[in-house]
Amino acid sequence: MADKKLVEAITSMDEDFAQWYTDVVKKAELLDYTSVKGCMVFKPAGYAIWELIQSQMDTEFKKTGVENVYLPMFIPESLLQKEKDHVEGFAPEVAWVTHGGLQPLQERMCVRPTSETLFCDFYKNDIQSYRDLPKVYNQWCSVVRWEKETRPFLRSREFLWQEGHTAHATAKEAEERTIQMLNVYADFCENVLAIPVIKGRKTDKEKFAGAEATYTIEALMHDGKALQSGTSHNFGDGFAKAFGIQYTDKENKLQYVHQTSWGTTTRLIGAIIMVHGDDSGLVLPPKVAPVQVMVVPIQQKKEGVLDKAYELRDRLCGFRVKVDDSDKSPGWKFSECEMRGIPVRVEIGPKDLAANKCVLVRRDTREKIECSLDELEAKVAETLEKMQKEMLERARAHRDAHTYTAKNFEEFEKLFTEKAGFVKAMWCGDQACEDAIKEKLAVTSRCMPFEQEQIADTCVCCGKPAKKMVYWGRAY
Amino acid sequence: MADKKLVEAITSMDEDFAQWYTDVVKKAELLDYTSVKGCMVFKPAGYAIWELIQSQMDTEFKKTGVENVYLPMFIPESLLQKEKDHVEGFAPEVAWVTHGGLQPLQERMCVRPTSETLFCDFYKNDIQSYRDLPKVYNQWCSVVRWEKETRPFLRSREFLWQEGHTAHATAKEAEERTIQMLNVYADFCENVLAIPVIKGRKTDKEKFAGAEATYTIEALMHDGKALQSGTSHNFGDGFAKAFGIQYTDKENKLQYVHQTSWGTTTRLIGAIIMVHGDDSGLVLPPKVAPVQVMVVPIQQKKEGVLDKAYELRDRLCGFRVKVDDSDKSPGWKFSECEMRGIPVRVEIGPKDLAANKCVLVRRDTREKIECSLDELEAKVAETLEKMQKEMLERARAHRDAHTYTAKNFEEFEKLFTEKAGFVKAMWCGDQACEDAIKEKLAVTSRCMPFEQEQIADTCVCCGKPAKKMVYWGRAY
Repeated sequence: MADKKLVEAITSMDEDFAQWYTDVVKKAELLDYTSVKGCMVFKPAGYAIWELIQSQMDTEFKKTGVENVYLPMFIPESLLQKEKDHVEGFAPEVAWVTHGGLQPLQERMCVRPTSETLFCDFYKNDIQSYRDLPKVYNQWCSVVRWEKETRPFLRSREFLWQEGHTAHATAKEAEERTIQMLNVYADFCENVLAIPVIKGRKTDKEKFAGAEATYTIEALMHDGKALQSGTSHNFGDGFAKAFGIQYTDKENKLQYVHQTSWGTTTRLIGAIIMVHGDDSGLVLPPKVAPVQVMVVPIQQKKEGVLDKAYELRDRLCGFRVKVDDSDKSPGWKFSECEMRGIPVRVEIGPKDLAANKCVLVRRDTREKIECSLDELEAKVAETLEKMQKEMLERARAHRDAHTYTAKNFEEFEKLFTEKAGFVKAMWCGDQACEDAIKEKLAVTSRCMPFEQEQIADTCVCCGKPAKKMVYWGRAY
Repeated sequence: MADKKLVEAITSMDEDFAQWYTDVVKKAELLDYTSVKGCMVFKPAGYAIWELIQSQMDTEFKKTGVENVYLPMFIPESLLQKEKDHVEGFAPEVAWVTHGGLQPLQERMCVRPTSETLFCDFYKNDIQSYRDLPKVYNQWCSVVRWEKETRPFLRSREFLWQEGHTAHATAKEAEERTIQMLNVYADFCENVLAIPVIKGRKTDKEKFAGAEATYTIEALMHDGKALQSGTSHNFGDGFAKAFGIQYTDKENKLQYVHQTSWGTTTRLIGAIIMVHGDDSGLVLPPKVAPVQVMVVPIQQKKEGVLDKAYELRDRLCGFRVKVDDSDKSPGWKFSECEMRGIPVRVEIGPKDLAANKCVLVRRDTREKIECSLDELEAKVAETLEKMQKEMLERARAHRDAHTYTAKNFEEFEKLFTEKAGFVKAMWCGDQACEDAIKEKLAVTSRCMPFEQEQIADTCVCCGKPAKKMVYWGRAY
């Protein structure tokens, strides 16, 4: 049977999660490989998800006063080198442009791996007085990092993202903006992507090159691995001092600005796949589904069926809706809707037509809902809303069921040997313990969550007095 | 007076059009220069115009079945070289990446100057059967061309654009898509940017590297120079043969696809400035104005004035509206609204408040319209609509008044010596005449318009029998 074949084409997630992931990316036609090693093609179904993420996140940004800009993709080498920690973090993984046209360049330039240095160079001239502050700018663009190992959506040499860069008069205002944007990301993940996240601060070992403090949202994938899903950095006045970004305050004194940056990337699409997907393929939260409703005519050659399918599509124009009027079998069409993660399928055949009804099928639960055609729009709206809500609840239940607590190293090691998930454990604050844990268990500190608990009084690694509760995990 | 100073800061357009243009770009805070030679920063006011162009044009694209994708920014050298004419056209002006991280690359890559070769490489695998056709893909991205001379919006080393790339089963379908997209561009320019354009075909001399036919829309700037504002190319099966892009047709025979590409860039913003601007600055068509209405309180310290201004703003929430509540003088605020091209200014002071009215001022005509507060929303909507319409009419009248006709070389030369604008004249079809005209008058063929006229029977240059009527002009 044709429809069987399509489903059998993907590996079961319990059998081989990594292969399942690759299969879904390919069969749902999200991405494809290219001749350029480590770079991918975003196919229509993949790019459309990014467009929906982009437009909804951008709306949230703008509510907080963010303005969009666009800066060059090239960074002269001397500019990249101005902030010491930053250049050490990024120089080993940038792509270098050495020739323009037929001539060698006087100074080589890298393709931006991130744009702190360009924004600093810009702000240096653009900011003169306290009246010019704050600057709350963001850009949507692609960046390049010359990674050795790549994986669709999670790590590629070129990826799409947004990067916000702000400048403020005071340290307090910068810290507030850093936290504000982390909250925007967390709310977006929960409300739009139906992905619950842990908010917290990164340890110094894991923070961004050049930052005073890095905050993160961490999500748990279906296989129990963590995914860093967005970060927000407070730079203090470090970059301002390296680049000389000063303003005259109300008392006419020169002051350094305080800066932040924050970013999310197309790896959010990887998170959607790995949090919500199942053995039939992708499951898309309705708010980021490029097609929310697929109308599938049954026995479409029978009189009136196709016309009715088009009529239903037209009535559902308030949603992102399509009709599958191809000459494939209904079984194949169902299976394809499932693979592509389309939230609601509307089945309409001759018998339904006669009875003035249709059948709605939810992608996540596969629940079949008989629906009078008189109530179609309302029922579809209700189903999508319910699905969006329940997907978040399910993801949260999964996350909570895979979050463990360890009081000492024995428990800690046992959990990471037997289970997959987050482990909450205490930490003394010493990087040596982080290094030792990574060495022994291949586990990293994901974050020091804002919501702290006193699980024990001593560090899970060295037994010295504990300072912080940390989420630990294996991560993508 | 503070407000005088702001206006005096820009050069008059009749005195020095090039300087006026640069002044407007700078004073309206659209773009700024960077440390990267030939690359610009799009500031919020400039980028917001591009966002409005992008979202409205994208909507028109999608109505015709276009799907968005994203392909890598790098092209391996061997890929760029596959189509002979294409590589000759672009190789001299690309930026080359030679190192990834600390290692030299095995094969150098250029930063895309345009993506025909990448799309071909992708289509080669993605297209197998007639069922996979047509492919109607587009991407919004930036491209790099290592230009020696750069000008804000008109020519820079990196610029933002969209590039559509399609593949079709037949030559006829490819030609239809080429023309269809040219029409989308032309309608967009007229309906959204209020810029009338001439649609036509480029001569072989002026066509795109690798194309069978290039179609163009040409607009006339205020100074009488032409601006190529969008192009659409029919590649026939040339790229398909170079890259081996074949599909099996319904009879199971292998066939080459037929391809098109089409693009518009941020130079459209340059066109808006140069078609509509005046000596007070930018004049934005309401449909692409990031702020359509600015409410300016007069004597804002008087009781109730600021509150009323905010109330009017809230009532006008169906438009892109702001209040200028800064502590600058009203005169300064008026002048700033004008510089930034804000279509409608709403003035509200204590006397207006008492009389339940306000004053609307149109940016383009400076017409003052007394408006009862009871009719505010309707009057603003009507004014914006009227302004959009009249801006197009005015631009068309200017274009028509600066379009001339020459029957012979003497008339032709006289026109280009004494006037600035388009000159319509006949051409024999021989490139030698185009070369001679360019050599003698620094004038290029802009296009062979779809609407042909028989101005004379002989070529304006050589006197041999004429084949085509051509629009000639000096161009940006």
